[in-house]
Amino acid sequence: MTTMDGFFTPSSVALVGATDKSGWSLSTFNNLRDPEHGYPGEVYLVNPRTEVVHDTAAYPSLTAIGKPVDLAYVMTPVSVVPQVLREGAALGTRHYVVLTAGYGEVGGEGAVREQELADLAEELDLVVLGPNGNGFINAAMKTNPYGLPIPKPLISGNVGVVLQSGGLASNVLAFAQARNIGVSLLTSMGNETVVSVTDVVSALVDDPNTKSIALFLEAIRNPEEFREVANRALAAGKPIVALKVGRSEKASRTAQAHTGALVGDDKTIDAVFKQLGVVRVESLEDLMVTAGLLAETGPLPGNRIGVVTPSGGASEIIADRADMEGLDLPDFSPEITAELKAIVPEFATVANPLDVTGFVLLDRTLLGRAAEAAAKEPAIDLVVLLQDLPKSTPSMDDTVAAFTANAEILAKSPVPVVIMGNVLTDINEVGREVTRRSNYPMILGGIEHGMAAIGHAVRWSETYRRAQERRGTGDGGSVVRLPTTDASGVWAEHRAGSFLREHGVPIVPTELVSDADAAAAAADEVGYPVVLKAAAEGLAHKSDIGGVHLGLASADAVREAFGSMQASLAEHGHPESQAIIQPMRSSGTELLVGVVRDPQWGPTLAVAMGGIWVEVMADSALRVLPVDRQEVREAIEELRGVGMLRGARGTPATDLDALAAVIHQVGEIAVGLGDDLESLEINPLLVHGDRIEALDALITWRSDGEPNGGQGASTPSDDEVSRRGA
Amino acid sequence: MTTMDGFFTPSSVALVGATDKSGWSLSTFNNLRDPEHGYPGEVYLVNPRTEVVHDTAAYPSLTAIGKPVDLAYVMTPVSVVPQVLREGAALGTRHYVVLTAGYGEVGGEGAVREQELADLAEELDLVVLGPNGNGFINAAMKTNPYGLPIPKPLISGNVGVVLQSGGLASNVLAFAQARNIGVSLLTSMGNETVVSVTDVVSALVDDPNTKSIALFLEAIRNPEEFREVANRALAAGKPIVALKVGRSEKASRTAQAHTGALVGDDKTIDAVFKQLGVVRVESLEDLMVTAGLLAETGPLPGNRIGVVTPSGGASEIIADRADMEGLDLPDFSPEITAELKAIVPEFATVANPLDVTGFVLLDRTLLGRAAEAAAKEPAIDLVVLLQDLPKSTPSMDDTVAAFTANAEILAKSPVPVVIMGNVLTDINEVGREVTRRSNYPMILGGIEHGMAAIGHAVRWSETYRRAQERRGTGDGGSVVRLPTTDASGVWAEHRAGSFLREHGVPIVPTELVSDADAAAAAADEVGYPVVLKAAAEGLAHKSDIGGVHLGLASADAVREAFGSMQASLAEHGHPESQAIIQPMRSSGTELLVGVVRDPQWGPTLAVAMGGIWVEVMADSALRVLPVDRQEVREAIEELRGVGMLRGARGTPATDLDALAAVIHQVGEIAVGLGDDLESLEINPLLVHGDRIEALDALITWRSDGEPNGGQGASTPSDDEVSRRGA
Repeated sequence: MTTMDGFFTPSSVALVGATDKSGWSLSTFNNLRDPEHGYPGEVYLVNPRTEVVHDTAAYPSLTAIGKPVDLAYVMTPVSVVPQVLREGAALGTRHYVVLTAGYGEVGGEGAVREQELADLAEELDLVVLGPNGNGFINAAMKTNPYGLPIPKPLISGNVGVVLQSGGLASNVLAFAQARNIGVSLLTSMGNETVVSVTDVVSALVDDPNTKSIALFLEAIRNPEEFREVANRALAAGKPIVALKVGRSEKASRTAQAHTGALVGDDKTIDAVFKQLGVVRVESLEDLMVTAGLLAETGPLPGNRIGVVTPSGGASEIIADRADMEGLDLPDFSPEITAELKAIVPEFATVANPLDVTGFVLLDRTLLGRAAEAAAKEPAIDLVVLLQDLPKSTPSMDDTVAAFTANAEILAKSPVPVVIMGNVLTDINEVGREVTRRSNYPMILGGIEHGMAAIGHAVRWSETYRRAQERRGTGDGGSVVRLPTTDASGVWAEHRAGSFLREHGVPIVPTELVSDADAAAAAADEVGYPVVLKAAAEGLAHKSDIGGVHLGLASADAVREAFGSMQASLAEHGHPESQAIIQPMRSSGTELLVGVVRDPQWGPTLAVAMGGIWVEVMADSALRVLPVDRQEVREAIEELRGVGMLRGARGTPATDLDALAAVIHQVGEIAVGLGDDLESLEINPLLVHGDRIEALDALITWRSDGEPNGGQGASTPSDDEVSRRGA
Repeated sequence: MTTMDGFFTPSSVALVGATDKSGWSLSTFNNLRDPEHGYPGEVYLVNPRTEVVHDTAAYPSLTAIGKPVDLAYVMTPVSVVPQVLREGAALGTRHYVVLTAGYGEVGGEGAVREQELADLAEELDLVVLGPNGNGFINAAMKTNPYGLPIPKPLISGNVGVVLQSGGLASNVLAFAQARNIGVSLLTSMGNETVVSVTDVVSALVDDPNTKSIALFLEAIRNPEEFREVANRALAAGKPIVALKVGRSEKASRTAQAHTGALVGDDKTIDAVFKQLGVVRVESLEDLMVTAGLLAETGPLPGNRIGVVTPSGGASEIIADRADMEGLDLPDFSPEITAELKAIVPEFATVANPLDVTGFVLLDRTLLGRAAEAAAKEPAIDLVVLLQDLPKSTPSMDDTVAAFTANAEILAKSPVPVVIMGNVLTDINEVGREVTRRSNYPMILGGIEHGMAAIGHAVRWSETYRRAQERRGTGDGGSVVRLPTTDASGVWAEHRAGSFLREHGVPIVPTELVSDADAAAAAADEVGYPVVLKAAAEGLAHKSDIGGVHLGLASADAVREAFGSMQASLAEHGHPESQAIIQPMRSSGTELLVGVVRDPQWGPTLAVAMGGIWVEVMADSALRVLPVDRQEVREAIEELRGVGMLRGARGTPATDLDALAAVIHQVGEIAVGLGDDLESLEINPLLVHGDRIEALDALITWRSDGEPNGGQGASTPSDDEVSRRGA
């Protein structure tokens, strides 16, 4: 990873290639020079062909400035960029923003230039943001080398923003401003030739001005880095909120064309984000409202909300939205109900959500006092107060006084209070002044996005707490490495099953037999009825060629089946087939448990309901490995057919923790097998009440190996384990 | 229904109970008197105790005005309201808004007062809006007898708004203003004692200034009226968009407490809205953005969109949202691609969605010209153009010129062009002026709500077209009345099956037999294996008492089973049991088809996947009857398990139209049975490829009737049909 130390706080900036002919040049200069933005450092303009640019004396070269600058903002023609970097490097300038386009995004020759730029940066040890990016806005430090006009006022705050699409920056800033959400640092990434999203996110995790991080992502270029930085952010209690495009095939294709990077399977992204505590949102509005809320509140204590509103209709909308977000609205206790009754008008009904009625128009602290009482309710974790800022006021002082009174009440609340507006409209200058002067908390933009943000924040907080606990117990921090011999080709049924059984996965009793008598004896052993299956490896479509016999109810039937199986397989070129005998299971719910190698994220565990569920409903849940048991349990509970496991249609309920333990063990084995493993599949894992059994398994190794006809030494002889730190 | 003729366009208004002490009084007076609102009629203040109110001469009574007023806006104490109405009625005033509260909403005595008000209105033939409502805002006619401050400017337009929660009016107006969405008439319903939501909607359907209708609903008080007015709106091409609360149990309970009305089952509401073409939304933002769009565009021609944007990131967000909304993004044809290539900068990629790049900053008609080219694409039905209005401008004239140029290009488009902003922020006075002067189309508020609105609009347009076609063919307009004898109690299996078979529903071959030989003969007839079931009516849990024998493979087995069944049932007090013989079906997908009587909406058809699907997944779709076959087909396709019917796991695919025809027929029978029917259930309807068969059926009549032990005359002897107009 590239370290960004000092990159975003240069004490001097040179605009190389500055010219009156370019709007970008003018914008960058204005953004650095505008007194309202207040950049305290030096700004130099460099242009070899003219002495005055933007009414300011220009230097013919970086060298001519006479001292090294901290940051060079490069907007020269593309052919000149390398020599600018060489010249700067020679002068001691290590940090560059390259606005110039014409690199990878135009393909062909541009891609070659981009590689040259990367090589040059590495050679000279330069940190380059871009190319084809607009730079950054460090609102907290009033340092804005940024190539587009910045809508004023630029509100400084605690949300760090990183965008893989420069075109969205203006919209994000406009929206942040409209909702009075302050930004710490906004970065327009460009092509990420040197500096990547993860580098900037890493810097934001360390940035004391940043309390939450908002990302617009087209592609995650380096999953390993992303995982690392996301874990670091979660540990630091800095929520990452991400709008990641690519849910649809069309968007995925567009993003891939746009970035040239692998976009990845969207369901895997969902799983990864969930595991890493990255909040995934679907709109720019939710991105900024959610990040804004989390920057303000930090972790929230729970999902039980008490809602105070001035409108019955709004209360009902909130109740519906709370339900969608998994937020509870507990009834107020008799004590709090009595207290609220004393506050609201006589004709009002006290309930949660609470409608204090339109009397708020007459009593400007009615809402605040009701919220104060509601906040004492032991059954709730936070209060949601429905209130908008005024867009105009006959008396600013009166309004500020009323808001100040409420703010003082709310500040004393024993639980967090989240303020939420009714509809998503702008906070204008009047609202901003009221907020500033009354020290009022953030007001979420409307019920729709506000409730979504609260839902996200509550769920993130839960993930955060779990991560804290895990860190406390040291759980999940180590990997057991399982050495295998002969880890190549495909291990089918018996071999895979034996291996998994040795490593703690319950497998249906399975006897490998070589003749009819042994088959009958094995059947006596495991109990009737039994299943007999041909055990020749590499045998596809066994059942089509007489290799599978079900429901054999007696020793004779087993003997007969064995003979018939051998004869039939001999006809198909497998003369010396062995067989396995298993008890036949007739009831239970089939699951499918598999581990496959995601090209981006590595071994990924899939849990699915079997049979029609997976085929018709695509009812599956993913987790990138490694996972802990709790995460596996949550994956199981994501399945739409989980009701089957809880005991539907008279089937016995399954202990989901026990099931999670089995599936977790499958994941542990896959992790332990490391890079040797291509895929591992248990199909089905049959679940019937407390009985959890794999009926069949398949392990595919990444090495093709030699074709393996025999069965003898197929089971790994060595199950020693070695432990390594994570 | 109450007719609203002339109600919303009074040429004179008296404010009865006007007083300086009331903010409501002052607001109402200001709303009528403010020159900016421009009410052209007469306004009288009535107060018996003071001569001057709001700095204006007041009259002691309505009578003292000396001539009848068109509308009396009543805000007197609750005890005085009846005498005001009597006095007004005597003077010839038929129209009233009652702001006064203290009626049903306070319960007890208030409910009595509300009934008295209803009776009085009926007695005197008065039209009363409210009580406990703020009145209305007729922006189109500049007539605003409305009790709360109206945010300025009030934008007049084509969206009619009806609210069951007065508290939301300010929010709806604020949002409409922020998005420059014009309102024709906004009505705050209050308690709906006399005038109901449906009365106002009906008036809006007839109102030439109203092109779409936005509703906030807590409860639908009169489903029959609602259905009628919704059908009328659909026929007139006026979309109704509704935010109906009550999805969650909590909101449902709150709404019920608030309105005293039955809130209804939310899944039924979903079905009804879908059938009636009422667009259901979940937020106030979507309510107004969707209604605003539809008021602007009317019906849209299809779901294939061509998207033109200045940003790759935005394009990808739009592609994802389009996918969620079921909107297609066809590739541009080679001709249009070539044309677009000539317009966009060289380095841009031509695709749908199209990113014309940040060069829009340099070329202000780039977007318009690209949209013009895209609009020629034969594969698309509409163009979506991503563009925001400026919030500030260095030169209004230049900006207006650029927008005018684009507007002229877009006006010539052969397909509709929908303009959409990036994020949901306010259109301010600058934007409004640009729009006004350049005659620019509506700009949807942000991608998130904009795409939702386009999705809703496209789906509504499809429903609208289908309704038009239906009207053309006269389909669905008549009901076949099925007379039945003995329509009482419960008709089980054989009786219900015979009845359904006679009316065209395929039932598995079923023979009713009275002895073992007849049973064997019947089994020979229907083919082995067979099922034998006891046919005594009213027999619960047949299988628990030996009344069901499955998989009988020979005549002997059938004889034996018959004897065993009789003996077993005799033990349980059913000595003379008959039996039915059916072929045993071993494969197929089970559906459940039922008709139940919804307390609000009447007979409702439910289609569900059988077995685990309905139990674990609650996988069902509802339609209120009557329905046409197409609607039934759509209900089938809503099932999450529909893949089973399309042929999963090697099962043959089913002709969904044939299946829809069978289920449709079940619905027709239920409708034909009219009020006699309590419920009708086919469980299962077994579907296996082309074989569609009811295996069991149950009809429950509303009349309990006499217990019916015998079987003889159980089948209705009369299947004559009579036809009546709908």
